[in-house]
Amino acid sequence: MSYEECTLIGRNAVLEAFRAGKTIDKLFVLDGCQDGPVKSILREARRQETQVRYVSREKLDSLSGREKHQGVVAIAAAFAYAQIEDLFQKAKEKGEDPFFILCDEIEDPHNLGAIIRTANLAGAHGVIIPKRRAVGLTGTVAKVSAGALAYTPVARVTNLSRTIDELKERGMWFVCGQMDGQLMYQQNLTGPIGLVIGSEGSGVSRLVREKCDYRAAIPMKGDIDSLNASVAAGVLAFEIVRQRMGSGKA
Amino acid sequence: MSYEECTLIGRNAVLEAFRAGKTIDKLFVLDGCQDGPVKSILREARRQETQVRYVSREKLDSLSGREKHQGVVAIAAAFAYAQIEDLFQKAKEKGEDPFFILCDEIEDPHNLGAIIRTANLAGAHGVIIPKRRAVGLTGTVAKVSAGALAYTPVARVTNLSRTIDELKERGMWFVCGQMDGQLMYQQNLTGPIGLVIGSEGSGVSRLVREKCDYRAAIPMKGDIDSLNASVAAGVLAFEIVRQRMGSGKA
Repeated sequence: MSYEECTLIGRNAVLEAFRAGKTIDKLFVLDGCQDGPVKSILREARRQETQVRYVSREKLDSLSGREKHQGVVAIAAAFAYAQIEDLFQKAKEKGEDPFFILCDEIEDPHNLGAIIRTANLAGAHGVIIPKRRAVGLTGTVAKVSAGALAYTPVARVTNLSRTIDELKERGMWFVCGQMDGQLMYQQNLTGPIGLVIGSEGSGVSRLVREKCDYRAAIPMKGDIDSLNASVAAGVLAFEIVRQRMGSGKA
Repeated sequence: MSYEECTLIGRNAVLEAFRAGKTIDKLFVLDGCQDGPVKSILREARRQETQVRYVSREKLDSLSGREKHQGVVAIAAAFAYAQIEDLFQKAKEKGEDPFFILCDEIEDPHNLGAIIRTANLAGAHGVIIPKRRAVGLTGTVAKVSAGALAYTPVARVTNLSRTIDELKERGMWFVCGQMDGQLMYQQNLTGPIGLVIGSEGSGVSRLVREKCDYRAAIPMKGDIDSLNASVAAGVLAFEIVRQRMGSGKA
């Protein structure tokens, strides 16, 4: 298992990776580049719902180091993504109510890695991340997860709020951390639950927040604004653990 | 307030900083360099109990960038250190039992910064770090603390286990996180308390662990070894917050 970032440089390398079914986290294409081979690559990207960014020649040069990129650079995932079904399967195997952690636009690979590590140790059955405006399973994320990625499935979805709707239909409840919510100790966080963690800068986005059944506050007694995203995830996840232990359901 | 790392290069710059009473976190001296001016610098370092490292010319060259270092480079603290008394004062001002977080050899500036941020928001009255084998208040720590360093005093001590003895004489109890300890929910973590967080690699060192009155376990339900140090600090600190809220003492 390698933690190396997997950068694919040049048209052939990228097209072959797509056709081999490799998961591409991000595709960078030279702005204005529209010839046949690039169109084929973009078609594959659309099919896989890969995030595409049109960038300058300078950006591509810096991404590719000294190699000739021909206007195309892609970042492949260091780990394979799971399906939502894999997360449910994990809960079923353990005979527990599902407990998923959803990351809303976490961009810092250290935070995502630490959250996956926390998810594993808190007994969550998996992590769900969005495809857009978020870091994927890069080499850094894998490394910071300290091995957790080998055990804890991470699914990547196109639309987090739509996924929440689908999971609600399967009986799950959702809680997000929010400063002006009700104190987390006073809420019932047992049962099949999804814990939503907001981004470093702006917290949980409005659309996703409105889908949540509970807004749980960590008691804040300090002078500054908010905890680091991975620390907040840890505190909330272990409050769920504490309540589950009390209820005898995990 | 600048978050820049403060690197002092060359004999005069370093000696002047010492004489101006600036806090030097680390002093790097060319191995074998023993002339008069260097001896004066080492004397100042001894007086301030500054950590000294004898290093190769290559290391000094890389620390100093292109500047002429004359065999001496020092790293100044980005923030001033507090005294233990300042931490007690903070508790007294708030009318609360003292609650300090002690970091045992935390080397990663991201972890120390996140712990100071957590200390602030959990209402701890300060953080205590050791001088040796630990990161000091560097620019990165200040930045990651997200402003908490402006409010939460950080004291630096020569010997953490001796400091614990002194604080015990003033009525404090100490708890460290340890996997095979008693479950944290089952321990009484109210009253004047010091929470000891172990290093990323090897946890709490033996000497310090033996001084602790309680060893508290976070309930671990996963496949991997341990939480990230700053996440573990957050989970333990907020368990103390929860118990204090219940006891009506904070």
